Amino acid sequence: MSETIQLLRAHRSIRKYKATPIPQEHVTEIALAAQAASTSSNIQAYSVVAVRNPERKKALAELSGNQIHIEQSPLFLVWLADLNKVRTAIRLHEDIELQQNTELFLLATIDATLAAQNATIAAESLGYGTVYIGGIRNNPQAVSELLELPPLVYPVFGLVIGVPDQEPDLRPRLPLQAFLHEEVYQQEGVVNGIKAYDETTRTYYATRAGGEADTQWSKELIRRFNGGKLREHLQPYLISRGFDLK
Amino acid sequence: MSETIQLLRAHRSIRKYKATPIPQEHVTEIALAAQAASTSSNIQAYSVVAVRNPERKKALAELSGNQIHIEQSPLFLVWLADLNKVRTAIRLHEDIELQQNTELFLLATIDATLAAQNATIAAESLGYGTVYIGGIRNNPQAVSELLELPPLVYPVFGLVIGVPDQEPDLRPRLPLQAFLHEEVYQQEGVVNGIKAYDETTRTYYATRAGGEADTQWSKELIRRFNGGKLREHLQPYLISRGFDLK
Repeated sequence: MSETIQLLRAHRSIRKYKATPIPQEHVTEIALAAQAASTSSNIQAYSVVAVRNPERKKALAELSGNQIHIEQSPLFLVWLADLNKVRTAIRLHEDIELQQNTELFLLATIDATLAAQNATIAAESLGYGTVYIGGIRNNPQAVSELLELPPLVYPVFGLVIGVPDQEPDLRPRLPLQAFLHEEVYQQEGVVNGIKAYDETTRTYYATRAGGEADTQWSKELIRRFNGGKLREHLQPYLISRGFDLK
Repeated sequence: MSETIQLLRAHRSIRKYKATPIPQEHVTEIALAAQAASTSSNIQAYSVVAVRNPERKKALAELSGNQIHIEQSPLFLVWLADLNKVRTAIRLHEDIELQQNTELFLLATIDATLAAQNATIAAESLGYGTVYIGGIRNNPQAVSELLELPPLVYPVFGLVIGVPDQEPDLRPRLPLQAFLHEEVYQQEGVVNGIKAYDETTRTYYATRAGGEADTQWSKELIRRFNGGKLREHLQPYLISRGFDLK
C-alpha cells in the first residue's frame, strides 16, 4: 500500500477545529493541487472562493444549517461550478451567448468536484482536517449574494480546512460487493452487501456515543428520506441563476 | 510540498497504455481508497463497474467515441451515480418509492465523482496512469444496456487505469487569479487571468506536435461550443432511466 493510499484510507470528516491560522503558502499549494485534477477538454469551468472573514464565515455557517465548524476553522472554501468563466472567455471575442444544457451543467459540477477532492487530499497531506459542507445548498440564493456570484455560477459544496481538534473513528463503508461490480451491475451483490452492512452498522451505531441505539444503515436511509424531499428549491434556484437544465 | 501534493501536481491524462495486467490486489486497494472519500450523510449512492472483458472494453471504446486507449489498457472502470442502491436498501424494509429530485441526482453524481478522484490518485500512487472518459455519456443508453444497469443508475464517466506507454507534458492551467477568489467572486481576476492564459496557451498550442498553430484557450472554447450543444440526449436519457430532475 502506498503512503498516499494510507492517507486516503485514513480520511474522516473533522467537525471540530483549532483556530490555528493556515499560511497563504499552504492555501496556494492546495489551490494548485486542485487545478492539477482532470478537467473535461481543459474547459476548467470551476472556481473556488476562499473565505476567511469571520463575519462572512459566520453567515455561511448559519446559512448551511448552523454548522459551527465553519466558523471555528480559519479557512472555508466554497467550490463553484462556473460557466460564467466560459461565457466570459467566449465573449472576449464574440458577442454570442453560451449554449447550455444538462450536460454542460454536469460537466462543470463534475470538474469542480474533482478539483475539490484534490484540494481535500492536498490539505490532509499537509496535516489538516477537512469536512465537506453540502449544506451550502440549503440557501444557495443567499450564499450567491454573500459571495457576489455572477449568473451561471453556483456553489456545489463548501469545504472546511483546518487543524483538527478531535480524532473521530473511521466510519465503516458498504462491503466491496455492494460497490465494486465485475463486468456488469450485480444487484445480488448490492442486496447481500447491504444486509451485511446493516449488521456492521447496527453494532457501530449502538456503541457510538450520542447515536441511536437500535438502528442500522438502511433504516437510517428510511428516516432520512421519509422526512420529505431534500432541497426542493435547488432546481428553481439553478434556473434562476441562468442554468439551462434541458 | 508533501509527496502526495507532488503526485497530484504531476497528473497528466494518459492516452497510450501497455497491455500489462493489473493484479486484483491493486484493484481492491484502488476501490477501498475510493470508498474512503467523503459521501454525503454516508448515503453512498455510487457504484463502479470494473470492465476487463476485451469484447466489452472494445464496445465501450466505440460507444465513447472510438477511444482506443479503453481497449489498450486491461482495466476500465465505469463510475455510476447509483440511486438504485438507496432504493434497494429502503425497500428491504418498506414498500415505498424513493422520492427524488435534482438535489438527490446531484448528490449521487458528486459522491461518485469524489470516490473516482480518490481512485485516480490511488492508482497513480501505485505507478499507473489514468484518463477520465466523459465520452461514456455519448451513448449512455447503449452503455446502460451493456453494463446491465438497473433504473436509477447512470454512468457519470469512465476511468482508464493502466501502465503508461507515453509521457505527455503537463498542460498549463488558468492562472490562480482566474480560479481562486478571495472572499467574494472576482470577475476582474477572471478576465485578466483568461487574457494571460490566452498568451500562455498560444505558445503551448503553437509548439505542440499535432496542434493548431494559431489558437489560444478562449478561441478553442468558441470552436468547441460553436459546434452545437454537447450531448443533447443526456437529460431525456436520465429521465428515461427513472431520474426525477425536478
